[in-house]
Parts: sequence; C-alpha cells; structure tokens
Amino acid sequence: MTAQRIAVIPGDGIGKEVVPAGLEALRATADRFGLSLDFDTFDFASADYWQKHGTMLPPDWEQTLRAYDSIYFGAVGWPSVVPDHVSLWGSLLQFRRVFDQYVNLRPCRLMPGVRSPLAGREPGDIDFVVVRENTEGEYSSVGGRVFEGTDRETVLQETVMTRIGVDRVLRFAFEQARRRPKRHLTSATKSNGISITMPYWDERVAAMGEQFRDVRLDRFHIDALTAQFVLHPEWFDVVVASNLFGDILSDLGPACTGTLGIAPSANINPERDHPSLFEPVHGSAPDIAGKGIANPVGQIWCGSMMLEHLGHPEAAAHLLGAIEDVLAYGPDHAPLTPDLHGTGTTAELADAIAQRV
Amino acid sequence: MTAQRIAVIPGDGIGKEVVPAGLEALRATADRFGLSLDFDTFDFASADYWQKHGTMLPPDWEQTLRAYDSIYFGAVGWPSVVPDHVSLWGSLLQFRRVFDQYVNLRPCRLMPGVRSPLAGREPGDIDFVVVRENTEGEYSSVGGRVFEGTDRETVLQETVMTRIGVDRVLRFAFEQARRRPKRHLTSATKSNGISITMPYWDERVAAMGEQFRDVRLDRFHIDALTAQFVLHPEWFDVVVASNLFGDILSDLGPACTGTLGIAPSANINPERDHPSLFEPVHGSAPDIAGKGIANPVGQIWCGSMMLEHLGHPEAAAHLLGAIEDVLAYGPDHAPLTPDLHGTGTTAELADAIAQRV
Ligand SMILES: CC(C)[C@H](C(=O)O)[C@@H](O)C(=O)O
Ligand SMILES: CC(C)[C@H](C(=O)O)[C@@H](O)C(=O)O
Repeated sequence: MTAQRIAVIPGDGIGKEVVPAGLEALRATADRFGLSLDFDTFDFASADYWQKHGTMLPPDWEQTLRAYDSIYFGAVGWPSVVPDHVSLWGSLLQFRRVFDQYVNLRPCRLMPGVRSPLAGREPGDIDFVVVRENTEGEYSSVGGRVFEGTDRETVLQETVMTRIGVDRVLRFAFEQARRRPKRHLTSATKSNGISITMPYWDERVAAMGEQFRDVRLDRFHIDALTAQFVLHPEWFDVVVASNLFGDILSDLGPACTGTLGIAPSANINPERDHPSLFEPVHGSAPDIAGKGIANPVGQIWCGSMMLEHLGHPEAAAHLLGAIEDVLAYGPDHAPLTPDLHGTGTTAELADAIAQRV
Repeated sequence: MTAQRIAVIPGDGIGKEVVPAGLEALRATADRFGLSLDFDTFDFASADYWQKHGTMLPPDWEQTLRAYDSIYFGAVGWPSVVPDHVSLWGSLLQFRRVFDQYVNLRPCRLMPGVRSPLAGREPGDIDFVVVRENTEGEYSSVGGRVFEGTDRETVLQETVMTRIGVDRVLRFAFEQARRRPKRHLTSATKSNGISITMPYWDERVAAMGEQFRDVRLDRFHIDALTAQFVLHPEWFDVVVASNLFGDILSDLGPACTGTLGIAPSANINPERDHPSLFEPVHGSAPDIAGKGIANPVGQIWCGSMMLEHLGHPEAAAHLLGAIEDVLAYGPDHAPLTPDLHGTGTTAELADAIAQRV
C-alpha cells in the first residue's frame, strides 16, 4: 500500500501548539488501523515566514501542495506583524480558491462532558452542521477607494455570486441533509436588506429544493437565525450559508456548544480534483499563544474529518470516539484545558486522547 | 404648549397588535407628566396598502411625515403578499435613508424577571447598547445580474462606505461610550476576510479613537464577536457596527437577554433635521400574528426612547421603570406573554404596564 501524503502547515500562534497534538492523535490512530500516512511539515503561511521572506507563500506553493492528498492546517494570522487581510488573502483564502475547496463543512455538536453556555442544554440537544460556501460571495477582492483623503472618500467592495458557485454548494448541502435522519435543511438569507445577491441565493435554494423534495427546507434571515441558534439550537440539522454568513454561524454554533476550541472544519473540494484542507475553526489566538493551554480538540477532530475524507471511515469514527470518551470524563477526571473548565495543558489533553485511541 | 406630533405606522402582522399597546402606555405616561402628544395613524408601509395601491407608500409620503416630530413604527413585511426586499426597500429602508436616520440605537439589557437562555446570567450581567450604522454599507441598491439564465449567471452587489457615513456613526458611538460609566467601545469588523471595506472601517475607528482617548477601545471580527456575545456578554458596553453587522448583533444581543420581544430600537437623525423613527427590533412575526399573544414590551420601550428623544427624560425613565417593575413580578405574578414564559396576552401585559405608569 502506498502511503497517503499529508502536508502539515502549523501557521501562527496556537496553530504551532495544537498541530503537534493533532499529529500525535493521528499517528496513534494510523498505528492502530495500520494506515500508512506520511507527514511533511511546512513553515510557510505564517508571520515567521513573512518576516523572513516578505511574502506569505513561496512562489511554487501551488505545485508543492498539489503533490499531497490533503492539507492539515493549524491557524494563520498574527496582526502585530502582518495585517490580517494581507496574511489571510496571502495564504488560507488563496488555498480555498486555488484548490476550489468550495465546501466548508463545520459540525457543531454539544459533546458529553462539555458545559454549554446555554441554560439546560444536554448533549443531543445541539447537533447540526454548517455548510459554508467557501470561494466567492462577500469575500471578494473586487473594489477600491475613490476620492482618497477627502470628505468624499468612498470605499466600494463587490459581493459576487455565481450560479455555478451557489448551486454546487447548495447541492452538497441538500445531499448532506438527505443523508441525515432529520432530512432538514435551513438556508441563511438576508434578502429583506441585501436586496440583490440574497434574493438570488433564495431563488437558487428554491430551484434546488425542487430536486430534493424529501428534504424539509426552511429559511431564516441571518439576524433572526443567530437569535434562534441561542434560543432554539435544537431546531437545526444542516444549515447552508454564504461565505460570510457561514463564517459567522460556524463561530456562533460552536460557542453554543461550549467553546470554539473543539470545533473542526473541513475545506473540501468534493470532486477531489484538488487537495482538501482541514483546520480548526479557532484562529491563532494571540492572547493565549505560547502558554501551552490551547485546546487541541478542534485540531484533533479535524484529523478525524481528514481520515474520513481519505477513505478511512472506521479510523475516523474511532478517533472521534476517543475524543468523546475523554471529554465525557469531564474536567475532574481528564486533563481538560481551561476553556473546558479544567486545568490540563494542550499536551496532557492530547496524550489522554492518543492513549484512548 | 403646542402639542408634539407623532406619526403612527402599525404596518404588518403583530405590528398592528403591539402598536395599540404601545400607544396605551404612551398615553398613560403623557397624562401623568402633562405632556401634550398628538397621534395620527397611517395605513401605508403595509401589505394591505400594497394590495390596494400596488406601492408601499403614497407619492407624498415624505412631505406627510416631515410634518411630524417623530414616527412610531410597528413592523413591516408580509412575504406571502409582497416579497420582503420589495416591502422593506419600499418603506422602512427608505425612511432610514431619506430622513438620514444614520444611527440605529439598540439597547440589550437583561431585565429582572426575564429568564436568559444563557446559563447563570443575572440582570446586570448583560447591559450594552448596539450602535448600528443605518444608511449605507452592505445595504446598498447598487448591483445587478449578468448572463441571466445561463451557466455563467453572475450577481453583483456593491457595499458602499463613505468617510462621512462611517465617521458620523463612529463619533456618535464614541460619545455614547464616553457618557457611560465603563467608557468602553467595541468595534465589529471582518477585515481579515472582507478585505476592502472592513480595513477601511478599522482605519476610521482608529482615527476617531485618537479624539476619544478616554474611551477604552477594542475590536472583534464579527464571527468571534457573535461567539463572545454568548460566552461573555458581560464584556460589552457600547458596540458599534456596520449596517449588516449591527443588524445581526442587535438580534443576537436581545436573544441573549431572553426574547426579541422586549427589544426596542431608535432610528435617529441626531441633528434633528429630519424626524426620527422608533420601532421594536422584532418583525411582523407571521407565525404568531392574529393570536393576540405578541409581546408588546419592545414597542412600549420604544415609546420610552421616543419620549427621551422628544425632550422628556423624566417621563421616559418613568415609563421604562414601569416596564421593569411589571417584568420583575415574573410570569407567576404578571400577565407576561408566552415568550416570557407566561400566559398573558398582548392587551393584558399592556394594561398592566399602563396601570403601573
Ligand atoms: C426588516 C429588515 C430589513 C430590518 C433590517 O435588516 O434592517 C430589520 O431586520 C431590522 O433590524 O430593523
Ligand atoms: C481567518 C478568517 C479569514 C477565516 C474566515 O473568515 O474564513 C476564519 O474566520 C474562518 O472561519 O476560517
């Protein structure tokens, strides 16, 4: 069996702390299931690289990364060294576009042992997945500034939606919903205020819905939807959203499940023409970086999603099970990190999960 | 003393139920404080009007409304009759722009007697105000569709920010923060992803901050900010945001305080060159309209904000105090509506508040 090749990019801040933790769990899982995985680590897509080279990526990054089956990514962004829009557009947002990872899949699940900030919520009450459009929409680089420095100064930025771009992510979301027991899809819109692109989104949702009549479909304006995530998280099963709305919902959703620290995400090219990328939802977290207390669960759960994508569903399920088991011990019986109300370190929690595997 | 004139627009759905409730409380307050307020009710800005006339507003609406000191508004939107983007752009969003109500002020406060969906939160833990830009930004009508009906179909919509538009709302927000004990302002951004308009917003925030060095300033990306509203609502004092981000935060914030039903908003033209408009944050709520169970508190609280704006701070504080007193009785001792875990009707709750006044 030839090894599957994985490009590892720790990036910035706590990315450099949780990626080793994630690799430990992945290696343990690979051992147990006799999988052959090869890891190569790269230092680009980081503020350190920027300081040395003045760019976020080497010129041949695309060719380099194309040689890999997938990309295991930490976090990028270190605003005291390089402005966020420069570092992100110079790395992660490039990867998503150039590798046409048009689906960003983000599960939100309240895990046993994890305390929700929402009153009275138990595991099972919150279990949905956000399907985020990942290549177009509100994240565009079209626009600019006129009448600079004067009272008339005006800044423009274009949101761009295409039929191809919208339809393909909607189809993916409907298919996800069809595979789940509840067969329920919620679409995030704001067609009452964002009067051109959002009515178009709604129109395509309605058209795609015709092909998925077995999926129950509803839609909420994004403002009301964020409110319902807090008031009625149990209403949701699969939630599909534009790039920006998906970004918001996939931070808010994990917050409702206790901490952003456990949330994974998969940036997927479903056709597998390009490598997919797996990264936790949290960022580089300058406020806690270097302290060794970052929660590695999001990064480890990413490993499970990556194994699934690489064609190892049993290994993926086993790793996720190990995470669930260790979390379920709770902060008194497992070295959970401070965001999980424990006193454990990144390394201790990662060891516990790797051992459980 | 000449009477102050108020244009009353109930609009659609529960707007028609809560506006009479709000007027009852306003009349009781006016009586008590010897204020002379004149109310004229209009049927436009509603689906009924649309069905009769094919437009949301009469041609002379602007001239008509300019004759008033302020506008007391219910809710507009009835998508089964007229698409939301048509009804909203044909009424409320016009009012905001034509009357240059560039500040949308939305207090979020956990009231005694009201149960927060957030675990362990008490009154006092959540008490902030969202200052939303209300005339430009993501809510623009510039854009369109090309290659219609083909695979290349592409839809564009421009976000437009101006120095004048951004600076004036920022100045208002900093001034609000300066007047509050904590002197703390949080700016919502997304400059890592929305790479042109949002870095501009940040730049203007930093520039304005120079003039308000006594105000503690921080900023969060909108995704992280929605998460922190749930995890740490006690962190916030004044939150300033673009039109879209402010829309989202001012639904999520009130949801964290128990229900959208109690949240008021003031669409203000601070220079008083044009009438300001007061409306609850909730919409027309087709799901509960006609049942007489809509929560009138948001609409009544709007009345308090309007009295303040009209130069009656004592009356405004008294009305707000009456709301607080009745809510504090809790669902067992006051006719609170179902969203407040009670069994009261709109009319019963309104009566209780009016009597308390
Ligand atoms: C109805 C809608 C257009 C409106 C808005 O988005 O501004 C509403 O949600 C609000 O917050 O006042
Ligand atoms: C860092 C940032 C550009 C990114 C995004 O907005 O997509 C992040 O928030 C995410 O959700 O992956």
